[in-house]
Amino acid sequence: MLEQLKEDVYKANIELVKKNLVIYTWGNVSAIDKKTKLVVIKPSGVDYEQMTPDDMVVVDLSGNKVEGRYKPSSDTPTHLELYKKYENMGSIVHTHSVWSVSFAQAGLSIPAYGTTHADYFYGDIPCTRDLTEEEIKQDYEVNTGKVIIECIKDKNPMEIPAILVKNHGPFVWGTNPANAVYNAVVMETVAKMAYKTKMLNPSVNKAPQFLLDKHYYRKHGENAYYGQD
Amino acid sequence: MLEQLKEDVYKANIELVKKNLVIYTWGNVSAIDKKTKLVVIKPSGVDYEQMTPDDMVVVDLSGNKVEGRYKPSSDTPTHLELYKKYENMGSIVHTHSVWSVSFAQAGLSIPAYGTTHADYFYGDIPCTRDLTEEEIKQDYEVNTGKVIIECIKDKNPMEIPAILVKNHGPFVWGTNPANAVYNAVVMETVAKMAYKTKMLNPSVNKAPQFLLDKHYYRKHGENAYYGQD
Amino acid sequence: MLEQLKEDVYKANIELVKKNLVIYTWGNVSAIDKKTKLVVIKPSGVDYEQMTPDDMVVVDLSGNKVEGRYKPSSDTPTHLELYKKYENMGSIVHTHSVWSVSFAQAGLSIPAYGTTHADYFYGDIPCTRDLTEEEIKQDYEVNTGKVIIECIKDKNPMEIPAILVKNHGPFVWGTNPANAVYNAVVMETVAKMAYKTKMLNPSVNKAPQFLLDKHYYRKHGENAYYGQD
Amino acid sequence: MLEQLKEDVYKANIELVKKNLVIYTWGNVSAIDKKTKLVVIKPSGVDYEQMTPDDMVVVDLSGNKVEGRYKPSSDTPTHLELYKKYENMGSIVHTHSVWSVSFAQAGLSIPAYGTTHADYFYGDIPCTRDLTEEEIKQDYEVNTGKVIIECIKDKNPMEIPAILVKNHGPFVWGTNPANAVYNAVVMETVAKMAYKTKMLNPSVNKAPQFLLDKHYYRKHGENAYYGQD
Repeated sequence: MLEQLKEDVYKANIELVKKNLVIYTWGNVSAIDKKTKLVVIKPSGVDYEQMTPDDMVVVDLSGNKVEGRYKPSSDTPTHLELYKKYENMGSIVHTHSVWSVSFAQAGLSIPAYGTTHADYFYGDIPCTRDLTEEEIKQDYEVNTGKVIIECIKDKNPMEIPAILVKNHGPFVWGTNPANAVYNAVVMETVAKMAYKTKMLNPSVNKAPQFLLDKHYYRKHGENAYYGQD
Repeated sequence: MLEQLKEDVYKANIELVKKNLVIYTWGNVSAIDKKTKLVVIKPSGVDYEQMTPDDMVVVDLSGNKVEGRYKPSSDTPTHLELYKKYENMGSIVHTHSVWSVSFAQAGLSIPAYGTTHADYFYGDIPCTRDLTEEEIKQDYEVNTGKVIIECIKDKNPMEIPAILVKNHGPFVWGTNPANAVYNAVVMETVAKMAYKTKMLNPSVNKAPQFLLDKHYYRKHGENAYYGQD
Repeated sequence: MLEQLKEDVYKANIELVKKNLVIYTWGNVSAIDKKTKLVVIKPSGVDYEQMTPDDMVVVDLSGNKVEGRYKPSSDTPTHLELYKKYENMGSIVHTHSVWSVSFAQAGLSIPAYGTTHADYFYGDIPCTRDLTEEEIKQDYEVNTGKVIIECIKDKNPMEIPAILVKNHGPFVWGTNPANAVYNAVVMETVAKMAYKTKMLNPSVNKAPQFLLDKHYYRKHGENAYYGQD
Repeated sequence: MLEQLKEDVYKANIELVKKNLVIYTWGNVSAIDKKTKLVVIKPSGVDYEQMTPDDMVVVDLSGNKVEGRYKPSSDTPTHLELYKKYENMGSIVHTHSVWSVSFAQAGLSIPAYGTTHADYFYGDIPCTRDLTEEEIKQDYEVNTGKVIIECIKDKNPMEIPAILVKNHGPFVWGTNPANAVYNAVVMETVAKMAYKTKMLNPSVNKAPQFLLDKHYYRKHGENAYYGQD
């Protein structure tokens, strides 16, 4: 079932390796089928080189396995919390990419310092609060999802399609697997730029809001004029 | 028309990828035909892998499309402002290369710290002022060009063939597409060196002017003696 | 003799090159045969490209060569000290990988700043004390092993399978050669992340202990639930 | 003439590209024939990809061209000063490798922070004083050699086979072209390690002298025991 989506999720997982966002088994991509509300996700702890599209696991939104020979990613409950809350998320990516993790470990948002950031993220990429001891001991992966939702608040998650979980790393999303991985690559790149910017000028300010607006809306929304029609 | 220039501009765009100055669609190269005053430029938002020389767009200096199936780069008006002002610019490159963008986001010029810099750039690579809200809201890309020109002032732009647009990134130029990309690679490299230099020694001074003169004029002008005749 | 172990040790040495942990002859892998208590180790100063499995050297725990045309690695006595002390070490890796060496030269442990670290190392990766002049002048390589053991104290070395020798570099271990190299790659990666974390936020705290516990025990011990059964 | 030496110098120049020490034409290797006192060196400003062994230029110690269709490297007078002074230098390399240049631009020696450094360099890699305006205006390349010699003082240059010319970059040497390039790679690597060490711990001390002695003499001199006989 969902053979095309499995293929897309598989390819997106492999793309994480090609783009140097993951080593070994350090990342996972999922996607939701909007009709059936079934989620396709990478199996837990399986090497990317050995994996085939057929190894992708299908689960329902309650986390029950519907198809697949493997256990799904241990981060599955986090993905499911997000899909249940946000209807417009089509795919979610989690990695331990170095620059994004460094901001997460430092407990810092990635500030919108320039147009590269604003072309894709309408504002700072936030960092969640710490999970409490109770939230970690019981239902850790579910609570990771809840803390992400708490941090997004009442914003549209597609306007800033990424977040940092404190002391952990990035969760990124998009309309489909390829788009979610694309956003993960952009996030890692703007994290790298933000790091160097801050080192060069520790008292640097964010870019002016009207510059960020210009670049975001040049590429998104009804008045966008970047790219082809 | 202008088949050779299209080929050169195409190749220069591909070279940006090979030299790791761009990912996805994050850069563009243009060149001007000195006779006809027509400008060849990358199409907007088209992936480098899919592009062919035939996809390059031809526009006149007023921005009217003369040939091509695609819309030209959204940065076209910036390129045109520069070609209209400076007759000796043969080609212009814009990228979001990481080290140069970091200086632009930090609002800092790239200081002439050594001979690698002076071999190509006769002085600091400057960073423009902020654009105002008005300049951004109306004719943003034209005003980006105007702010670059304001920053160059009365200098010969070929002596420092690059600039940083604040909170945005580098614009670089040269006599032809290959030369402009070459300068963009050098700029990115000296930005990397300047970053590390400043981190190692925050109170470092620029290289002495007579050393910079020596290296610049060893390679440029009538008394140059570097390279073959 | 021990042909399979030679093959495994050989492959693990080559993997060090592939994973960019070593250049030239700057690293070595050994492994112990649990039955015979014989140790297989890389020959000293031989290039990885020229090496074959047959070039691996076999020594006993007293350091006597049992088989092989070459002299064993000059670090052999350090490896042997560790094998004699810790029965559960199956393989040891020593490299001069850049990020780990930088912490060793700075005389700093690699702090457990996040979940990437905690997935593999149950606490900070410690840095040994300085060796004394006497310890260096006489039996240097043996004393390097003794100082590592002194630093591990009464801990189980498999819970934090790596250490930094001050002003020198990392020693890493595992159940077998592939696992030891894997741990060396992870150590280098978490060192890189820890460096950037500290630069971004010099007053950063370690991750909460209950988060570290969660991640370590999610992957290790009887209640582990990461990966497949 | 000197066909084997031309081949060796050619290969060493190509190796600079492979080891990422140079881009474009930013480096040169020379070697001296001990019998004839003739020096083989890279031609000035010629791309590595186009070069053949036959393009190497032969000059005498006074700088007169003895053979070759091209002009020799513009840095030739610097190389010649060093060959005239030091009989034990067999080959010299000059590059603009990023980490070494950064120390040179910062006006800082590369401190001997650890054993990786001490395995090859018996002490800090020094940085020269500034050249004066007069030294730069007249016979710049000769004076660069003289300032290097002034900085080496009465030391044996083979014990620390590298130096940083202030605001410029590294000059490195060895017994033959392959060895000189090897030393240039090691220098760049220890510069990278030293940078990160200093960032992690700005008040870090050098490694104890007896540790440096141990590692240097483990690999050099009559009591060396590293490697095969």
